[in-house]
Amino acid sequence: MARKASLSGFPEWLPNERLVELHVLDSLRRSFELHGFSNIETRAVETVGQLLRKGEIDKEVYGLSRLQNDDGEATGADPNALALHFDLTVPFARYVVENAGHLAFPFRRYQIQKVWRGERPQDGRFREFTQADIDVVGDGALPFRYDVELALVIADALSALPIGDFTVRVNNRKLAEGFYLGLGIEDTAGVLRSIDKLEKIGPEKVAEALVNDIGTTADQARAALALASIRTTDTSFVEQVRALGVEHELLEEGLNELAEVIDVATSRAPGRVVADLSIARGLDYYTGTVYETVLVGHEKLGSICSGGRYESLASKGNRTFPGVGLSIGVSRLVSRMLADGGLKATRDVPSAVLVALNDDASWYPAQDVAAALRERGIAVEVAARAEKFGKQIRYADRRGIPYVWFISEEGTHEVKDIRSGEQVVADPQAWTPPIEDLQPGITTS
Amino acid sequence: MARKASLSGFPEWLPNERLVELHVLDSLRRSFELHGFSNIETRAVETVGQLLRKGEIDKEVYGLSRLQNDDGEATGADPNALALHFDLTVPFARYVVENAGHLAFPFRRYQIQKVWRGERPQDGRFREFTQADIDVVGDGALPFRYDVELALVIADALSALPIGDFTVRVNNRKLAEGFYLGLGIEDTAGVLRSIDKLEKIGPEKVAEALVNDIGTTADQARAALALASIRTTDTSFVEQVRALGVEHELLEEGLNELAEVIDVATSRAPGRVVADLSIARGLDYYTGTVYETVLVGHEKLGSICSGGRYESLASKGNRTFPGVGLSIGVSRLVSRMLADGGLKATRDVPSAVLVALNDDASWYPAQDVAAALRERGIAVEVAARAEKFGKQIRYADRRGIPYVWFISEEGTHEVKDIRSGEQVVADPQAWTPPIEDLQPGITTS
Repeated sequence: MARKASLSGFPEWLPNERLVELHVLDSLRRSFELHGFSNIETRAVETVGQLLRKGEIDKEVYGLSRLQNDDGEATGADPNALALHFDLTVPFARYVVENAGHLAFPFRRYQIQKVWRGERPQDGRFREFTQADIDVVGDGALPFRYDVELALVIADALSALPIGDFTVRVNNRKLAEGFYLGLGIEDTAGVLRSIDKLEKIGPEKVAEALVNDIGTTADQARAALALASIRTTDTSFVEQVRALGVEHELLEEGLNELAEVIDVATSRAPGRVVADLSIARGLDYYTGTVYETVLVGHEKLGSICSGGRYESLASKGNRTFPGVGLSIGVSRLVSRMLADGGLKATRDVPSAVLVALNDDASWYPAQDVAAALRERGIAVEVAARAEKFGKQIRYADRRGIPYVWFISEEGTHEVKDIRSGEQVVADPQAWTPPIEDLQPGITTS
Repeated sequence: MARKASLSGFPEWLPNERLVELHVLDSLRRSFELHGFSNIETRAVETVGQLLRKGEIDKEVYGLSRLQNDDGEATGADPNALALHFDLTVPFARYVVENAGHLAFPFRRYQIQKVWRGERPQDGRFREFTQADIDVVGDGALPFRYDVELALVIADALSALPIGDFTVRVNNRKLAEGFYLGLGIEDTAGVLRSIDKLEKIGPEKVAEALVNDIGTTADQARAALALASIRTTDTSFVEQVRALGVEHELLEEGLNELAEVIDVATSRAPGRVVADLSIARGLDYYTGTVYETVLVGHEKLGSICSGGRYESLASKGNRTFPGVGLSIGVSRLVSRMLADGGLKATRDVPSAVLVALNDDASWYPAQDVAAALRERGIAVEVAARAEKFGKQIRYADRRGIPYVWFISEEGTHEVKDIRSGEQVVADPQAWTPPIEDLQPGITTS
């Protein structure tokens, strides 16, 4: 972007850029709905108590307080105080518990909303950004098949976007934890946290941390790193893991689950999904499949779409709601595509036609033409003033409006394609632009 | 609504209710785009200084502060502190000034976003709600014709919604102020503020306030109330005003402008737009046309769509940006339609088809059927488990999914309309549901 946000971390798009973002949002919505996901929105605010339930992230939360808090409402870190949500998972969990009696399970939902984090802004990290989440949530149990399905849904949804090649990297917590348990390591969560830093700090430092901080032996650390180095585009990872000679029931379960995801994905979404045994995901609540997604050629941007399986997204008394879901970082994706991908809309405005004015009184018949065209779904503006035709054409040209409509003093109609200069007689009740001119398109310039 | 929001003033919809809201939002977007309005979004936060520029409303503003504010960022009422926007006009004015060099004027934009106000929640008043705004903004000047056009756009947009009859009430500040000046009253703003309370406190109390608080004579108060009592469905208000015997240049200008709006609207949007000389609008920045809109039969709900002309939405050095715009209170409208209008979606989910499973292995061919149907824009879910058909059909029935698809062991395909029970042989590559079943519709139950 040439322009700088006037408030660091809070990006705003120009109309043309917003058309690119809308294209992405519309495409995601369409993909999710074709797969039967229902839309919901949750409020922007949660109680601080709800947001901090999982601990550790309080630094990022924006608390709210009315500027004139004259009735003593809770503020700051008080658990009853209000704060802006920092993701869509915590609010969704609350929504499921509150509305369980009104929802049909398994509940498939998508949710596209802004979230806020008070982090230091940097490339690809914003303080306000849009997430697009899909989850399937069960009541008590949720078949593993949904883990497979969600990999397909997300491959489908991302393939429909103008973002080029991407890779969904899949791993399984059971596989990793079972492997560590089979090695005789007890602090499996500690190992996962260290492995999660692999890409950042490299294998040697991870090995050091495993031995010094987690208390593994050097052999155990080596084996854990060997596991994390496995990456295959098919189910051959199973053999590679077995070759490491570790055995554990949970490991077997994880191998079978991951093999099922990769097996189906290689046939139904070829080239899109790989097994990557280094994927750990920072968040503690994942219990099985975990997903991450990188844009090919933009790996440094980090994951643009992550998620996994959680055995208990939420609970209500002794009722638990397991789920599996993914979250797309729309703002991160769109800002990169605008900056480096050269994506832009073919015009700045929805209008396909400007109806020009001969004289002041022709504003009225011009409105008739506009109304007739709109009836057929053609976006139209009417000039506000009878300026010289050249000036009216420049008005259209500056906005990328492809057609200018003229009504002669005798009441005949002509429409001009201002790109080619071609002008033809046209009937307001029948004329339609070519389908590619009907709405702004998205191009890579 | 049967359900109560878990946080007072922060409504959340169930999936079926959200479909009604989405229908409204989609319809507004389509109407605005057909009239050539570009979409933008602004960040949710502004600086406190920006928000309080106009004064008086600080009580309603939600200030923001990071729960762990460890680097001394401004908080509370500090002008540099961040706070949530309470409308879309103030952020839009800032956006126009900041991006003036990148925008083509007159700039037509629509903006549909959440806003927040720390008000005491009550019927139809929320702390978080969605507004849909349209404005046209000029650079230096903006022809009056846009005042006429916006009345037509909004009549068009509201007519496309399933909300029943509505009335757009239009007045003109110049008309009222010119009239008061012609009467010899100097504090025209004070009179407007009193007249604005007419519907709430009645003419007698307004007359008292005019005499006691504003210092008008009894005759002046009577004349001001006589003006405010004029309401016509055509331009006959002009004669009625003239009959009051007051003369002033500004009054003439206002009469001409309002007559132009009403004249065009009666022919182009018959029955939708009336002249109502009691409309004052609380906000000080309107300088000409003012609009309010009530739902017929729900007048007590207050205005669902208001706005007007402002000579200076924003300024940058000696450059001013006049505009005219309207704002629709989407949440107020939708909550009323859900509660009293009986609006609901014909099903809870986007899915038109559930592909049933014979046995566990049939999940794979079922995915082929689903993919083939989705190619033609049909929303499909695949059952996750090969339960008894009765149970799979009940799954569809509970969600309102109209069709269940069966693949026999021999690989033949049939699809059942579970409402009628009719079951027919079908080709996954060719079958399409009737158009009315393709997506959830909106009905009044």
